[in-house]
Amino acid sequence: MEPQTICYRPIGVLHTPFADSEGAPIQPAGARGVEGEAVIDPAYAEGLKDLEGFSHLILIYHCHRSGPCRLVVTPFLDGRPHGLFATRAPARPNPIGLSVVRLVGVEGRRLHLKDVDMLDGTPLLDLKPYVPEFDQPFGPVRTGWLAERAAEAARRRGDRRFHRSE
Amino acid sequence: MEPQTICYRPIGVLHTPFADSEGAPIQPAGARGVEGEAVIDPAYAEGLKDLEGFSHLILIYHCHRSGPCRLVVTPFLDGRPHGLFATRAPARPNPIGLSVVRLVGVEGRRLHLKDVDMLDGTPLLDLKPYVPEFDQPFGPVRTGWLAERAAEAARRRGDRRFHRSE
Repeated sequence: MEPQTICYRPIGVLHTPFADSEGAPIQPAGARGVEGEAVIDPAYAEGLKDLEGFSHLILIYHCHRSGPCRLVVTPFLDGRPHGLFATRAPARPNPIGLSVVRLVGVEGRRLHLKDVDMLDGTPLLDLKPYVPEFDQPFGPVRTGWLAERAAEAARRRGDRRFHRSE
Repeated sequence: MEPQTICYRPIGVLHTPFADSEGAPIQPAGARGVEGEAVIDPAYAEGLKDLEGFSHLILIYHCHRSGPCRLVVTPFLDGRPHGLFATRAPARPNPIGLSVVRLVGVEGRRLHLKDVDMLDGTPLLDLKPYVPEFDQPFGPVRTGWLAERAAEAARRRGDRRFHRSE
């Protein structure tokens, strides 16, 4: 249906304390206060002007250690299988990750972050300022199978079920 | 610094009433109630199971009509230039768009949506269920130059400043 291929180049790299999916947080809620860094490619440094006014960033990144796509997955937060798109598992057709993190400082092209939940070395594709007027859902929110499970993301740690073997 | 290229294939296409940037909404807040559709590639239909339990989706898409990257832009909501990454302008190194929309129905591999603000024919890269416990910022939010401008996104319409000429 959509034969085209869309190619991106990372704008930088994310540094975090997490070398492996085993034991890593599964969402920023499980990484409160965890410090990390985004190092932006020098070619794009000029685009960081005015960023320090924002307290939170939306990071969009490539889950480089994610294994092959699986359309039905048993996610970390449930023992039952679910359709992939009804989960946040990284085993997606395009393994794009998304995290809302705190921006605690800008030092040249190094962004000091908190609440980082991704693996060390993750290629960063884009970053956007978080803006409640743009990013908060409109109307009442329902969260399906996650309704009674989402809070558990603050404690649950990952394992290697979606990890790519070298 | 990051020489690799990351290639994706769309998982589907977004249909909206907006054929051109001129006059289109600039955020979902300016598209309240506007109906659209995501049509998912048949290859991925199985991954939609359980999605209907969620009221909101995060759409991640390729801004296919965006012009070349500009590191300093004068965004729709301000008359002054800002660093690109301190804005939501589509003229990004990787023109990835992000919108939180309402899911009003699932009919096979057609997702009926509301609050769609992207252009018709936009290639969809990923969709995720919106989960407040995962996606809401932690701690107080500051929004820099947008603090007194963001609310205006509900009324302001786009123009062709970031549009790619054919």
